[in-house]
Amino acid sequence: MSETAQETTLTPQSLNPPVQRFTLTLTPPSIGDNTADIDRLARGLAARFGIPVPRVSLENINRFSRTLWESEFEVLAQVAFFEEGPEIIHLGPKEEPAQSYGFALDLGSTTMTFYFLDLARGETATVVTAANPQARFGDDILTRLHFAGDVQGLGELRRVTVDAVNRAVETTTGELGWDPSLLMAAAIAGNTTMTHFFLGLDTFHLIREPYIPAANRVGPLRARDLGLMMNPFGLVYVFPNVGSYFGGDLLAGILHSGIYERDELAIMIDVGTNAEVVLGNSEWLLACAGAAGPALEGGVVAVGMTAGPGAVERVRIHRETGEPDIEVMGKEKPVGVCGSGLIDLVAELFLTGVLTVQGKLDRSFPTKRIVETEDGAGYLLVSKEQTGHGKDIVVTNTDINILLKSKAAMYTILNVMVAKVGIGFDDVEKFFVAGTFGNHIDPNMAVSIGMIPDISKEKFVALGNAAGLGACRVLFDRAQMSKVDEIARKITYVELNVDQELMNTFRAATFLPHTDLSLFPSVKFPGLKHKEEE
Amino acid sequence: MSETAQETTLTPQSLNPPVQRFTLTLTPPSIGDNTADIDRLARGLAARFGIPVPRVSLENINRFSRTLWESEFEVLAQVAFFEEGPEIIHLGPKEEPAQSYGFALDLGSTTMTFYFLDLARGETATVVTAANPQARFGDDILTRLHFAGDVQGLGELRRVTVDAVNRAVETTTGELGWDPSLLMAAAIAGNTTMTHFFLGLDTFHLIREPYIPAANRVGPLRARDLGLMMNPFGLVYVFPNVGSYFGGDLLAGILHSGIYERDELAIMIDVGTNAEVVLGNSEWLLACAGAAGPALEGGVVAVGMTAGPGAVERVRIHRETGEPDIEVMGKEKPVGVCGSGLIDLVAELFLTGVLTVQGKLDRSFPTKRIVETEDGAGYLLVSKEQTGHGKDIVVTNTDINILLKSKAAMYTILNVMVAKVGIGFDDVEKFFVAGTFGNHIDPNMAVSIGMIPDISKEKFVALGNAAGLGACRVLFDRAQMSKVDEIARKITYVELNVDQELMNTFRAATFLPHTDLSLFPSVKFPGLKHKEEE
Repeated sequence: MSETAQETTLTPQSLNPPVQRFTLTLTPPSIGDNTADIDRLARGLAARFGIPVPRVSLENINRFSRTLWESEFEVLAQVAFFEEGPEIIHLGPKEEPAQSYGFALDLGSTTMTFYFLDLARGETATVVTAANPQARFGDDILTRLHFAGDVQGLGELRRVTVDAVNRAVETTTGELGWDPSLLMAAAIAGNTTMTHFFLGLDTFHLIREPYIPAANRVGPLRARDLGLMMNPFGLVYVFPNVGSYFGGDLLAGILHSGIYERDELAIMIDVGTNAEVVLGNSEWLLACAGAAGPALEGGVVAVGMTAGPGAVERVRIHRETGEPDIEVMGKEKPVGVCGSGLIDLVAELFLTGVLTVQGKLDRSFPTKRIVETEDGAGYLLVSKEQTGHGKDIVVTNTDINILLKSKAAMYTILNVMVAKVGIGFDDVEKFFVAGTFGNHIDPNMAVSIGMIPDISKEKFVALGNAAGLGACRVLFDRAQMSKVDEIARKITYVELNVDQELMNTFRAATFLPHTDLSLFPSVKFPGLKHKEEE
Repeated sequence: MSETAQETTLTPQSLNPPVQRFTLTLTPPSIGDNTADIDRLARGLAARFGIPVPRVSLENINRFSRTLWESEFEVLAQVAFFEEGPEIIHLGPKEEPAQSYGFALDLGSTTMTFYFLDLARGETATVVTAANPQARFGDDILTRLHFAGDVQGLGELRRVTVDAVNRAVETTTGELGWDPSLLMAAAIAGNTTMTHFFLGLDTFHLIREPYIPAANRVGPLRARDLGLMMNPFGLVYVFPNVGSYFGGDLLAGILHSGIYERDELAIMIDVGTNAEVVLGNSEWLLACAGAAGPALEGGVVAVGMTAGPGAVERVRIHRETGEPDIEVMGKEKPVGVCGSGLIDLVAELFLTGVLTVQGKLDRSFPTKRIVETEDGAGYLLVSKEQTGHGKDIVVTNTDINILLKSKAAMYTILNVMVAKVGIGFDDVEKFFVAGTFGNHIDPNMAVSIGMIPDISKEKFVALGNAAGLGACRVLFDRAQMSKVDEIARKITYVELNVDQELMNTFRAATFLPHTDLSLFPSVKFPGLKHKEEE
């Protein structure tokens, strides 16, 4: 687990967490007022704060009763607002310090990102990441889904995931000096498969036509139902899914982006394993997802890696010499290239003229950086003397080809969606880019390769970890949970019909930046003048 | 455990159980309609039957999902209506037979009476009783409360009680051929102490001034929270308490009596360990309880025993010879006298002239039945040749004295209550007598000894096991649960202020039938003429 300081956090405007603290002075019992302890507490809270009479779980009754007498009926109650009504989940003496914590979790298939929140103060104490432990059963989701095909496998996936979450909780609360039993609420956003694994839900029909999740919406659960290291009665909100391809992480992202309550049209893209695109405004939302991401994550492109220490994240190429200038994450020597580095590299090679419009390395370009590899021509980004692992970092035509397919997929999806509603990209007022990717990507570069449309750069907004921050939102303001339902109801999912027309659109988009250059007027590259003269 | 055929059962007018069966045909999923399984089921039920969208517990999702596919989306769902909303707790194929069971339990401190109900048909399958296993920790409640003073003791009391309930469930469902997991609902009525023990609630403040229960109202729970052998998600309704002296059994009794919805004034009395009295109508309810019962249960009176096989339940005394004519419960030889037998005996001895108005055996009465014992004079009810245990059954002056104190307590309570609201007994339209006692007692006899007021015998109604039948009511009609809350809210509890006036009232009532004979005009006894002549 590593602390990633560059993660942005959320500063809530106001505070309305799903677990709220109430200070209460009750009239002590007497012969003339012999209401039972718990009834006195629950009714007292309801009367004093205008909330429905809260429940108390059977297991808490004796402890709370003792606390009432010991603190002479002056108490601080923490009330969890479940869908089915409020419940008192913690009771302490009135003078107890303001301790009410929670965590938001972006449950990615590769990385889990935790936001540890102080719910009483409305602050993010720390952000930590940990590898998704499911990777031991397979890096790719399909292998894991196969493994989940029997009950033992599914149970195992669930167990390792919950264990990893609990380890992160244990370590981080230890570092923060927090009592884990004062973790009162959690919000978890993952894609549909991750959510199924986390909840132990059957994925049999999820991966078979017509691709049906076991459940989309389970409503807030209790921590003990999931085995999480928290207050056992704490509220755990698992973002609902919309369908097999449209998960809670994307709903959390939409929530964070706010596009569902804007009057103007906006697009949000999230590039992970899939490229996920949402287009819409306060009246309607259109969503689409497609396999576009692999090139941008570790494991597919030979030199690719997840954004993290040792990843080349920025690349500039000298226009005459073809020599690279790189920025590496952390203070380490480079060992690979992350998504934004790859986009930078391809864009810069193209803008310098090292890459052709077909995305091939031009051996005639006067540089020694073009080398021969087993996979054909390659561009030597970092020679082994400068790398962390003592091996050259070479990006080959094959790697570039994978990236071009990904960027073409992204552009195609965007194109299908605007076409579907009969608008042009210029009608879109905001273009939100979610994910770590969105934080690192240079929109100029992404436009240069034709991955995203050639619109005004001011329209681009990097959202950061939209899923994680969206999850933080529901913990700072429980009213956001009904917004999530509203978004889920509003979403129309666009199926990509793989027909000849789509294939043509896709093929045209695999070029740099596109076969139709009029779509990318701002992109100036060496071959352009030649092309314009033709 | 013995089957007691003489228990009356409830025949519901209409059926609206807390767990209801719904047959549903859903549109199977398709590419164009890819709602998740559980969402499809829950929303389908809500839309088809106009109920709120029901929840499904996490543990049930996979099973229910499989049932949906296996039964091709034609299902029978059983929905439990919890306070916090409905939940699907069982799902089977559409053609599944109508199996939905429940049990009502009158959790008495001596005897547990179970009513096994077919909730689908609205029928009582059987009524069984079992001894309350807490007796091993002490016959009287105070000993048990002492034992419950530490956590281990309380846990032990809870465990043996739940175990005994589960044994009764296991045996009876076995006899009935019922699958215990199809027990969908249970309703449990006990006094405040029994409820505390059953739920494992602390009794520390319950038995110390100002006598505060840990909780009065816990709301319907899930069977698994209590460890009951039922459908683990089944609904368990535990009748709330009103205070330390006023428990759920009495609320259940009031529910069964219906006095809370009558326009006319009515009284309900329930004689167990305490004498509990409720007076009121649809507008107000006044309740009072006092230690009046011991004489009428086994253990206090030397020859006393609980109503059951071998108990003398009816006694007539020949007016001239003083010879007894008895009826014994079951087909066994007599071994003791139950409450109604004792009342009969004292009344008949008094009416015959064997007992004086002071309740003393009159040795001058010409009968050989008056014998000398270690405790002074006694009446030989059954000689050892005729008994089941080979010992004489002799009722002594001491025994009679205990009964007189009990009957005086009952009359005093009744008197205090009518005085409190400024009415006379003649203003009372119905006089309900609850309990096994109510089933056996002869109102003429009870009036003769001045235990209950001298009102028209037609006003007396034996309610049977009002607590048990009240518990059956909520299982046949869940709307009754809110009636219980209504009753609890409406109840005013009258504390008996033990002052000189009360003592005078009590002392006057220890006479046969009372010092003020004008209160009992219908009671004619040998000494009366003599008295009138005075």
